[in-house]
Amino acid sequence: MSKIRVLPLGGLGEIGKNMTVVEIDGRILVVDVGLRFPTAEMMGIDLVLPDFTYLRSRIDDIEGIVVTHGHEDHLGCLPFLQRELGANIPVYGGKLTMAMARSKLDEHRLKEVPVNDLNPGEELKLGPFDIETIHMTHSIPDATAVAIHTEQGVILITGDYKFDQTPVGGVPADVGRLAELGREGILLLCGDSTNADRPGFSASESIVGPELERVFSRCEGRIVVTSFASNIHRVQQVVDAAEALGRRVALVGRSMRKNVNIGRTLGHITVPEGMLVQPREISDFPDHKLVIMSTGSQGEPMSALRRMAHNDHPQVSLHDGDTVVFSATPIPGNERAVNETVDRLFHIGCDVITTRDAPIHASGHGFAEEIKLMLNLVKPRYVMPFHGDFKRIRLHSQLAESVGIDPDDIFRGENGLPLEIDQRGARWGDKEQAGMIFVDGVEVGDVTDVALRDRRMLSSDGIFVVVATVSEQDGSSVADPEVIFRGVPYPDDAEQLLGDIRATVTGSLARAAKEQIREVDMLQQALHDDLAKFVYDRLRRRPMVLPVVVEV
Amino acid sequence: MSKIRVLPLGGLGEIGKNMTVVEIDGRILVVDVGLRFPTAEMMGIDLVLPDFTYLRSRIDDIEGIVVTHGHEDHLGCLPFLQRELGANIPVYGGKLTMAMARSKLDEHRLKEVPVNDLNPGEELKLGPFDIETIHMTHSIPDATAVAIHTEQGVILITGDYKFDQTPVGGVPADVGRLAELGREGILLLCGDSTNADRPGFSASESIVGPELERVFSRCEGRIVVTSFASNIHRVQQVVDAAEALGRRVALVGRSMRKNVNIGRTLGHITVPEGMLVQPREISDFPDHKLVIMSTGSQGEPMSALRRMAHNDHPQVSLHDGDTVVFSATPIPGNERAVNETVDRLFHIGCDVITTRDAPIHASGHGFAEEIKLMLNLVKPRYVMPFHGDFKRIRLHSQLAESVGIDPDDIFRGENGLPLEIDQRGARWGDKEQAGMIFVDGVEVGDVTDVALRDRRMLSSDGIFVVVATVSEQDGSSVADPEVIFRGVPYPDDAEQLLGDIRATVTGSLARAAKEQIREVDMLQQALHDDLAKFVYDRLRRRPMVLPVVVEV
Repeated sequence: MSKIRVLPLGGLGEIGKNMTVVEIDGRILVVDVGLRFPTAEMMGIDLVLPDFTYLRSRIDDIEGIVVTHGHEDHLGCLPFLQRELGANIPVYGGKLTMAMARSKLDEHRLKEVPVNDLNPGEELKLGPFDIETIHMTHSIPDATAVAIHTEQGVILITGDYKFDQTPVGGVPADVGRLAELGREGILLLCGDSTNADRPGFSASESIVGPELERVFSRCEGRIVVTSFASNIHRVQQVVDAAEALGRRVALVGRSMRKNVNIGRTLGHITVPEGMLVQPREISDFPDHKLVIMSTGSQGEPMSALRRMAHNDHPQVSLHDGDTVVFSATPIPGNERAVNETVDRLFHIGCDVITTRDAPIHASGHGFAEEIKLMLNLVKPRYVMPFHGDFKRIRLHSQLAESVGIDPDDIFRGENGLPLEIDQRGARWGDKEQAGMIFVDGVEVGDVTDVALRDRRMLSSDGIFVVVATVSEQDGSSVADPEVIFRGVPYPDDAEQLLGDIRATVTGSLARAAKEQIREVDMLQQALHDDLAKFVYDRLRRRPMVLPVVVEV
Repeated sequence: MSKIRVLPLGGLGEIGKNMTVVEIDGRILVVDVGLRFPTAEMMGIDLVLPDFTYLRSRIDDIEGIVVTHGHEDHLGCLPFLQRELGANIPVYGGKLTMAMARSKLDEHRLKEVPVNDLNPGEELKLGPFDIETIHMTHSIPDATAVAIHTEQGVILITGDYKFDQTPVGGVPADVGRLAELGREGILLLCGDSTNADRPGFSASESIVGPELERVFSRCEGRIVVTSFASNIHRVQQVVDAAEALGRRVALVGRSMRKNVNIGRTLGHITVPEGMLVQPREISDFPDHKLVIMSTGSQGEPMSALRRMAHNDHPQVSLHDGDTVVFSATPIPGNERAVNETVDRLFHIGCDVITTRDAPIHASGHGFAEEIKLMLNLVKPRYVMPFHGDFKRIRLHSQLAESVGIDPDDIFRGENGLPLEIDQRGARWGDKEQAGMIFVDGVEVGDVTDVALRDRRMLSSDGIFVVVATVSEQDGSSVADPEVIFRGVPYPDDAEQLLGDIRATVTGSLARAAKEQIREVDMLQQALHDDLAKFVYDRLRRRPMVLPVVVEV
């Protein structure tokens, strides 16, 4: 019997950066290579990646990467991983997913990485891995589950999914194949937990189109619709609603235009001839003849919609009578940015329609009953909930128990904790390194904790830099100390304060000279301590104090 | 006819820091003195106050301050305002409100400020102001509306309110008096807009108690309940539910203990003898005999609950089997902090019950139908929605239109924009200074935009400090340049990089010397430009670059 290990490197105990290492007899298959967006405390960080140290030590064992769908939290880390590993690991996935992968790799000038379409139903053999994908429905076309056939049964990783019976793409999830696999015997189910906290079934994507048309029909002025750029079916429904009401459509925002282009090339979206308006032509059309489809549904700082809300978009200037339609809900953590954008729009005089006003969004993740349906369809031996914070993983486990899975066969994991399965059963293995890598500017993984701690300190109280110039011969001060501060509010008595700081420095140096302290490091330490105390006593703040001693 | 001015200095176009200046014939009454909590972008800021520059120039005209209720967003700015104005302006309000005001003023050692109880129905004459308060229901006892009687009619400022027909305190809002005032003639209604976006009526506070008891009865281990410390009726309901189930209650968190003390003294909360357990005694009681009432419902960083969630509370260590009950909803902007706390608790093994699981919270602000009820009760001549962002102010205006108010009589204002009313009618006056003042540490209003901009820059990319020591005689370099960085990730080739930076400095100085640049300011500018370019070319980052030139 082969030894199987399933090691999540991301996506457990968090929402985002999904990445799983599956091992059979020491060979590795990576399923999904996602990223996360930083929180406010991660100062200056652009992206958060899974820590893939484990893979770095095992490069030669990696057979390939399978990606379940094209969202950032499943695909976004791909170029970074490939660049860091430097091994051109072959990538497999659905057509749209691979088109998006190719586009990302090209942007990072990683043209050598082999990218291969893998259609549902096709078989892929990679070393010991016998792989197939199963068509699923989600908020992006070409979403799949991944089944890995092993001697002991199938490992099924669902990716993100919902059971949409009337998807806009026309093809529901392949429940038939899932049921077949269930009959064959599923060893382990790693399922999406994102909406484990929502009871019932999710709404179908196809209810959104008619609702959008209803909302549009009540608008007299211009309509701006914002949604995720990758939700190509949503774009289709906006185009259809616009067409029905005799409006043209303008696509605004780089990712919106890019994704629609890829979607059109692959036939996922059909736009009637002459329907699209270039952003620069927007002002040529009367307001009631236009729908603008824009990025920015999450209140992203540099997005087209945010710029419109701040009257700072080169082509679109919103005004009284325009309606902005949010065909998306805020991802947890983005609520404030979204609310701020909405309020700006109200201030301009726009009307704003959100999902609270009309059902103009459908989640791409199945609710509790769909998770149960999946469990009942595939009847897994073991269950390991994926894609969720600790709360959702717990709730998913409760759902599994409710359909009759033995609690001992449910494994509530965390990043870095491998589930090991052999003939004796399943159990946790020893923890492997897992965590976050930061992308800061162009660099990957080099923002140390020290740098972040410093940034936090700098951000909260600013910095004082004090330069003392001392004689190399006797340590006496040879020039007036220089004092510079940044991020510290300019005090009313700044001149007085700076004078007092200089006096403190001089006093500190004199004392050090008396105590025969001549080492620059020790001088700097003494200066730091005296100054930090002085500044705190005087300002009741704790800015960073950076003493520099120059010997001449 | 007297000339009336109503000038909001906070609370319009935002949620929080409510403060209004009412003027009659040049004399001033201030209604509410609230604050806001900072957002993540306000780095290092502790509190946000209304800009009260306008009042500073008019100190001698101020007759007094009336506070509608004891919440921070209506009362919190009081000590700062008093200290900054330094005029000991008399304060008036309900008993509990004034007890809280006194406690705040004492903490700031402002014992001289006169604080006066003003009971609903009592008359208060302050210069031209003929004032009464009207009992309202809200999520804190002793909430009131303020009516100012003028020759032209009554100005009614509602404060925060709901029409709770079965309040826990027993006394519903005084609709009779509101109706009487309506018959007398309301000139201007300034009403709470907080829940203008929620249709229907708000739930009564008294539905919460039985729900809490139902939730508690299902818990086998310890129960931790978190809510706003000032929601004294909620605390009462927790105590009652605990009593019914034979559990004792421990109060944890400074503000929880303080508010309950004030509430008990004033008779707003009754705790049976022997019911309360001291925090240090918690471990003496079996889990199923205890309810812990804690601060931290908003995920506040240093709160008792947040510390428990991080296993860092001196008296309470949570474990598997404990249940944490969130009897509050996150204030917009706090969602992430709350979710993080919840997930930490799940990770520990606690069960977490929120308002999504059971109706264990009731909002303190009336919903749309209550706002309409208020409008119909008092039949105002003019309407100026208060307490809301631009969206809610707009929605409140639509509600006013829906009950028949002429759109021309509805004034959608913003902070600093005074509404002026005389015999000819109502119109906007010229804008006055309004905005935010920051409290940073102990200082008020001294965090300039420059300091915040610097902090933002420091927080995102860190800082490079470069010290060049040059000869006063000829500008030549007399010591090796010193380079220090903070908040910049330590590069792999740091030594090499520092060497190259020193070379850049030396080159820059040499070029400056050749160009006869000797002014220190100009030298620093040249150094800054060369270094910023070098650092960006090399690191693709834009840290703050701070060159210091020392002449010896």
